[in-house]
Amino acid sequence: MREVYVVGIGITSFTRLEYPLSEIAAYPATVALKEAGYPKVDHVYVANMASARLNHQSGLASAVVDSLSLTPAGATLIENGPASGGSAILQGFLGVASGMFDCVVVTGAERLREVNNLEATDAVAALSHPLAEQIYGVTLPALAAMFTRLYMQKYGVTERHLAMVAVKNHDNALDNFFAHIHEKITIEGILDSPEASTNNPYVAEPLRFFDCCPVSDGGACVILASKEVAQKLGKPMIRLAGVGQATDTHCVHERAEPTELLAVRGAASQAYKMSGLTPAHVNVAELHDAFTILEIAESEEVGFFKRGEGHLALERGETRLDGKLPINTSGGLKAKGHPVGATGVGQAHEIVLQLRGEAGKRQVKEAQVGLTCNFGGFGNNVVCLIFKRED
Amino acid sequence: MREVYVVGIGITSFTRLEYPLSEIAAYPATVALKEAGYPKVDHVYVANMASARLNHQSGLASAVVDSLSLTPAGATLIENGPASGGSAILQGFLGVASGMFDCVVVTGAERLREVNNLEATDAVAALSHPLAEQIYGVTLPALAAMFTRLYMQKYGVTERHLAMVAVKNHDNALDNFFAHIHEKITIEGILDSPEASTNNPYVAEPLRFFDCCPVSDGGACVILASKEVAQKLGKPMIRLAGVGQATDTHCVHERAEPTELLAVRGAASQAYKMSGLTPAHVNVAELHDAFTILEIAESEEVGFFKRGEGHLALERGETRLDGKLPINTSGGLKAKGHPVGATGVGQAHEIVLQLRGEAGKRQVKEAQVGLTCNFGGFGNNVVCLIFKRED
Repeated sequence: MREVYVVGIGITSFTRLEYPLSEIAAYPATVALKEAGYPKVDHVYVANMASARLNHQSGLASAVVDSLSLTPAGATLIENGPASGGSAILQGFLGVASGMFDCVVVTGAERLREVNNLEATDAVAALSHPLAEQIYGVTLPALAAMFTRLYMQKYGVTERHLAMVAVKNHDNALDNFFAHIHEKITIEGILDSPEASTNNPYVAEPLRFFDCCPVSDGGACVILASKEVAQKLGKPMIRLAGVGQATDTHCVHERAEPTELLAVRGAASQAYKMSGLTPAHVNVAELHDAFTILEIAESEEVGFFKRGEGHLALERGETRLDGKLPINTSGGLKAKGHPVGATGVGQAHEIVLQLRGEAGKRQVKEAQVGLTCNFGGFGNNVVCLIFKRED
Repeated sequence: MREVYVVGIGITSFTRLEYPLSEIAAYPATVALKEAGYPKVDHVYVANMASARLNHQSGLASAVVDSLSLTPAGATLIENGPASGGSAILQGFLGVASGMFDCVVVTGAERLREVNNLEATDAVAALSHPLAEQIYGVTLPALAAMFTRLYMQKYGVTERHLAMVAVKNHDNALDNFFAHIHEKITIEGILDSPEASTNNPYVAEPLRFFDCCPVSDGGACVILASKEVAQKLGKPMIRLAGVGQATDTHCVHERAEPTELLAVRGAASQAYKMSGLTPAHVNVAELHDAFTILEIAESEEVGFFKRGEGHLALERGETRLDGKLPINTSGGLKAKGHPVGATGVGQAHEIVLQLRGEAGKRQVKEAQVGLTCNFGGFGNNVVCLIFKRED
């Protein structure tokens, strides 16, 4: 396989956006294309979950390639729920690695906020199994809540640990211009004060309001290319050194041990193997904290901490910006936001910024290797990516 | 790039199906997996257009990989409108060609018939441009009708030629067990008799009822693998020798010459180039006759006949089963049916049957090379594939 490099990145604010969905997808690509010196593009990958249902648009990729004036380049839309972004990057990787394409645009976008709220919530609930979960009223927050209870019982995680994730990620987002939420929160304010039960009510016990990511609109783009294309740019060489994707039972209740996220472990393990790197090499990571518990659980499953000890590392501050292994420097889904199809691409955007040394106030010193974990459904389809700076 | 072979195929009847969508996608894969001797599967690609909107299911690929008991293999859903099937095969090709995967399942499925008819019609209309076409009431049949008028004016195509396509494809479908429509029709019955205006009314003038494909449910699968995997099976070696994909302006009215289908031409040209073959090598083809005019126009754009002469070749019987270059031996979208996400995979299924010599009464003698053309939107995203039997 050929080596694959990131030659351009772009992003929109994750927020409420009034632009047409195709333009939300196209805009970050125009930023990335400029950065990449307008290379010849062979294929455009678009990651999106809900365009047909919420935005009255099928075949979105065909619209995006036209908005970008990149016809006749082929265009493909990838819909893997919340893991759409990572999945699209993985397919783009295969296109370049195979030698078929020299340069591909991977852009993710979602527009959820202007539609009826129940519609958007229901579109996400439709990720659960239609016959064995949905009909019993299961939603993603409910699944996450049940997962949290088990995790608390088994490993001693408390609501305080969950709040620590939220506080940390809100802090990180303060320095991210593109983040959805710029609001400093404290454990006192969301948990200990008399106002906490009003400020931070339960959504699905034991998960509270501040344990759940916002619903965001937004877009993000990475451009992948062969070594030849990348070398011409004379910029830091950021290689997509490892990719991995794994699935798990679609129904959460069918898992032998529901606190284990086997798809996370499998995807990470493949990405490490391909890259020849280990968890010890990773300097910065973006994990899929749609719910705060997921950052803790994923930090174990990708091998950063021993099983059941993620919350202890969090307590020790190891995952803070000034810690040993900063996690979700962008603010994560929790505070940067979660425009579903764009999320996985946004994670890659942050890691590339960090490896280039362009992350400003939230820069992790001497970051050479970064990992992303993009989590689909309730852990039934997961993509991990490892990026490496080559100097 | 590594060579890529088809090691298994499967299909459902294209008809009305009452099974859950995930099972419609999984069933043909079980048939194909059996044929392929249950190989180790590295990735499952699912082609589908409308699951989130019409079947209340997002992240369908995660459900299908579980139904097939193929977890933890990665799973990816491709949504490229009517070209979803061909697009998924192309992505699967890249996975194997790159060396990342040794074997991938590509299964397409759609379930449109049990839902509200207006919803299904509108889901297809959502393929047009939301700001520049949809809001003026454009539908795909309307675009096809306007295209037909221009084609008639420019090249002398008549309603009789369109009817010839329908009659031929209905004839072919009579011998295809899996076809949606088993109904012999005649030019007399649908055009010349006094009852014709009742039997075959205009849908969008000059297109009549029998110029339009049915709305079908159904699934189809092909399994792609490396040469090593294929050779172990001891079956005819069918290579996916060429793939191509191209886009065109999303809005039809923006095309300099609206009768030209540049994306068809571009996709075919790439597939020929990769395969080292020319139109003269092709023995059998499945073209995307969602509307009868498209079979005629595509037969020119993929290089079988000179521009404006496709209808003359049709008149001469060259595209009939006993002609020089049989087109749509399966019955085509017109009579085999059009379960949107499955359509492009179903085309590949037919070509593989033909190249293996397993097409029964509709077998094309000594077919060695076959081509498919899978047409998305109104020609804004097209995939062409060339299969070759290697003895």
